[in-house]
Amino acid sequence: MSGLGTPRESWIEVAPDSDFPLENLPFGAFARDDEPGQRIGIAIGDRILDVRAAAECGLLDDACDRALLLEPKLNALFGAGRGAVTAVRERVARLLQRDGDPALRELRSSAVFTPRCDARMRLPVDIGDYVDFYSSLEHATNLGRLFRPQGEPLMPNWKWLPVGYHGRSATVVIDGTPIVRPSGQRMPAGASAPVFGPSTMLDIELEVGFFTGRPNALGVPIPVGRASEHIAGLVLVNDWSARDIQAWEYQPLGPFLGKSFATTISPWVVTIDALEPFRVAGPMQDPPPLPYLRSATLGGYDIQLSVGLCSERMRAAGMPPQSVSRTTFGTMYWNVAQQLAHATVNGALTRAGDLFASGTISGTTADSYGSLIELTWRGQRPLTLDGEPRAFLEDGDEVTIRGWCEKPGVRRIGFGAARGRVMPSAGA
Amino acid sequence: MSGLGTPRESWIEVAPDSDFPLENLPFGAFARDDEPGQRIGIAIGDRILDVRAAAECGLLDDACDRALLLEPKLNALFGAGRGAVTAVRERVARLLQRDGDPALRELRSSAVFTPRCDARMRLPVDIGDYVDFYSSLEHATNLGRLFRPQGEPLMPNWKWLPVGYHGRSATVVIDGTPIVRPSGQRMPAGASAPVFGPSTMLDIELEVGFFTGRPNALGVPIPVGRASEHIAGLVLVNDWSARDIQAWEYQPLGPFLGKSFATTISPWVVTIDALEPFRVAGPMQDPPPLPYLRSATLGGYDIQLSVGLCSERMRAAGMPPQSVSRTTFGTMYWNVAQQLAHATVNGALTRAGDLFASGTISGTTADSYGSLIELTWRGQRPLTLDGEPRAFLEDGDEVTIRGWCEKPGVRRIGFGAARGRVMPSAGA
Repeated sequence: MSGLGTPRESWIEVAPDSDFPLENLPFGAFARDDEPGQRIGIAIGDRILDVRAAAECGLLDDACDRALLLEPKLNALFGAGRGAVTAVRERVARLLQRDGDPALRELRSSAVFTPRCDARMRLPVDIGDYVDFYSSLEHATNLGRLFRPQGEPLMPNWKWLPVGYHGRSATVVIDGTPIVRPSGQRMPAGASAPVFGPSTMLDIELEVGFFTGRPNALGVPIPVGRASEHIAGLVLVNDWSARDIQAWEYQPLGPFLGKSFATTISPWVVTIDALEPFRVAGPMQDPPPLPYLRSATLGGYDIQLSVGLCSERMRAAGMPPQSVSRTTFGTMYWNVAQQLAHATVNGALTRAGDLFASGTISGTTADSYGSLIELTWRGQRPLTLDGEPRAFLEDGDEVTIRGWCEKPGVRRIGFGAARGRVMPSAGA
Repeated sequence: MSGLGTPRESWIEVAPDSDFPLENLPFGAFARDDEPGQRIGIAIGDRILDVRAAAECGLLDDACDRALLLEPKLNALFGAGRGAVTAVRERVARLLQRDGDPALRELRSSAVFTPRCDARMRLPVDIGDYVDFYSSLEHATNLGRLFRPQGEPLMPNWKWLPVGYHGRSATVVIDGTPIVRPSGQRMPAGASAPVFGPSTMLDIELEVGFFTGRPNALGVPIPVGRASEHIAGLVLVNDWSARDIQAWEYQPLGPFLGKSFATTISPWVVTIDALEPFRVAGPMQDPPPLPYLRSATLGGYDIQLSVGLCSERMRAAGMPPQSVSRTTFGTMYWNVAQQLAHATVNGALTRAGDLFASGTISGTTADSYGSLIELTWRGQRPLTLDGEPRAFLEDGDEVTIRGWCEKPGVRRIGFGAARGRVMPSAGA
């Protein structure tokens, strides 16, 4: 998009603190009250541009094959490659900017815009595979100290490759979906047999994920230097975790039911183009990565992140969520290009709409950790929520993850939120 | 199907040793040379009944909604539930049996049948999530002895729950798909840094998998006693494994790139109904499982399994594959109903067409192991293939997995094959 960094204005009013100015234009999928199904939209201020309606009016025919924009989800558009996503976003920017193409303004506004507060957001894509990494040095070190106090906190492989594993794509849910407390087996300390019941150590994991765009072919790796051509955009992720279930089940094949009950994502896919002004160098990598993981470009994205927590009692009293963590994505050890290059170096296939999450994002200070198990040091130092102690999540607690980018001279953009409220166990 | 166990005959000739007599009637998806796309079929002898064509003639309208049978894959039919699958299979049996409904015979045979040798088989479903278990006591014990010679071979959780993890559904491929040797990181013994290159320990895993049918709802577990209502049928699985990549990467989150390059399945989904005569009690489970894993019904399926290996030199000399393993699915410690009940006990969602594989199936004797790492005891006791030693797979090696069920008084049924030939690394 030309003029990056130059403040531009839209003829649609956008509040100064909005996540969705003209510089953002993220993609999502939404449902309207008056029809079944869902359609593609782009957020602008407190409205959604109905991409399907705009495409049907012929307003986006310059940008890409119209059929891609009539789909209920974004898989086809993302699969057409970064160029198609860029072209649609640039065309929409020209239609929305004050001195741009007036074609859109001439339509009756109600036909192509929906107030965001009236729309029900849906998953933006059919998610093929979901991979979760473990790419924060601080998080991996904290977990190592908690789970293996006698040994080295990091495994020998950690600094050589972005450790990751596959999660369950069927249970990735959209912002606002209630989270039912999972039941499962856990082994109480000192017991000789496991017990079954609702998890007593329900936790969050603050993450950022990317959706793939153009697929590779089976057997053909994506080089690290070309990864951004295969990434459509980023979302916020909360990878809910039942620590007691996970601790008992995870050896030797990794997390399974301790994670697979729910993963929440934010609804708006913020494009790689919109994030371009916020690229930063990640931390120095020592030892230097093997050649297939080396890239000359800036690999990090300076995304600010916050976690808010609101108990049922706080909500009843009309209190806002309490901030329990503030951190940044920009200092992650392994970056998204390295993650995608690694995940495909064995020839594994990606499809448009695969989700790759970063793993828990933790900073260096005790108020910048991305999970309760770190924030409360496995419950030894509980948080205080309006007087109530919190080691892990209680029923009724609502978690809100937010993310945004800001720097001097550039308009702030945001991700919206990934929220979820804990509901009692189905068996309870 | 009425008359189970009673030998019946079809008006279509079926060879006595065919995998696909009237008693089987497995479902698959195939492509014809004269059209793009693919359609649902049912195997009978050396032919495929074109289910789409039969449905379009109205021959299957008694069985289920016709639209389910016009789809290119089986997700919609499987998702309609076991009753729909049973009804279609029973209707087809009546159309194919000698003294049954003559409606099909009256059609010109070429319109509704394709010779199996002319059809290109495709993946029978769009696979949502792929889970791989670790349910053979013998295999888990062998791997424990190989990887942790100092400790107890089984982890403390192994006899309490069916250990499993998520694999990559995008790289599940159909019988006959070439397998490109994956590249990746491995840590040579005694080295201080990993090296990158084609895997030198490429292995197989002999498995059986099931496809889910009727979905559960998010948050609602599938009880062990009702699992079979949610299972459409079974296939053979070869979960190709790069042991050197896996050994370096797998701690602490489990296998990732050592597995995600390819998983081969056999093309014909053998229904739960067809397998009913071959149900057996599994082994005694001690300690007794927790209540959510206890079932009064026979949990095992007595499926005979074989692994054949054919080198490039053997193939050039016109030699058949050499049998390197013979074992049975009937003695697996954890059964499919327990696997599905466990995988959903935390409320995780299944969708029609999810694949759950058993994990490597090994017997008690050294010629009944389901992987080369066990058969050759990590290469210490290489196999001999027509004079050539084999620790792990060489380029040009072709692996053939076969499976079948037989017992006195019941017609033998089979699964066909899951085959794959190893191609040189893309970088080589």
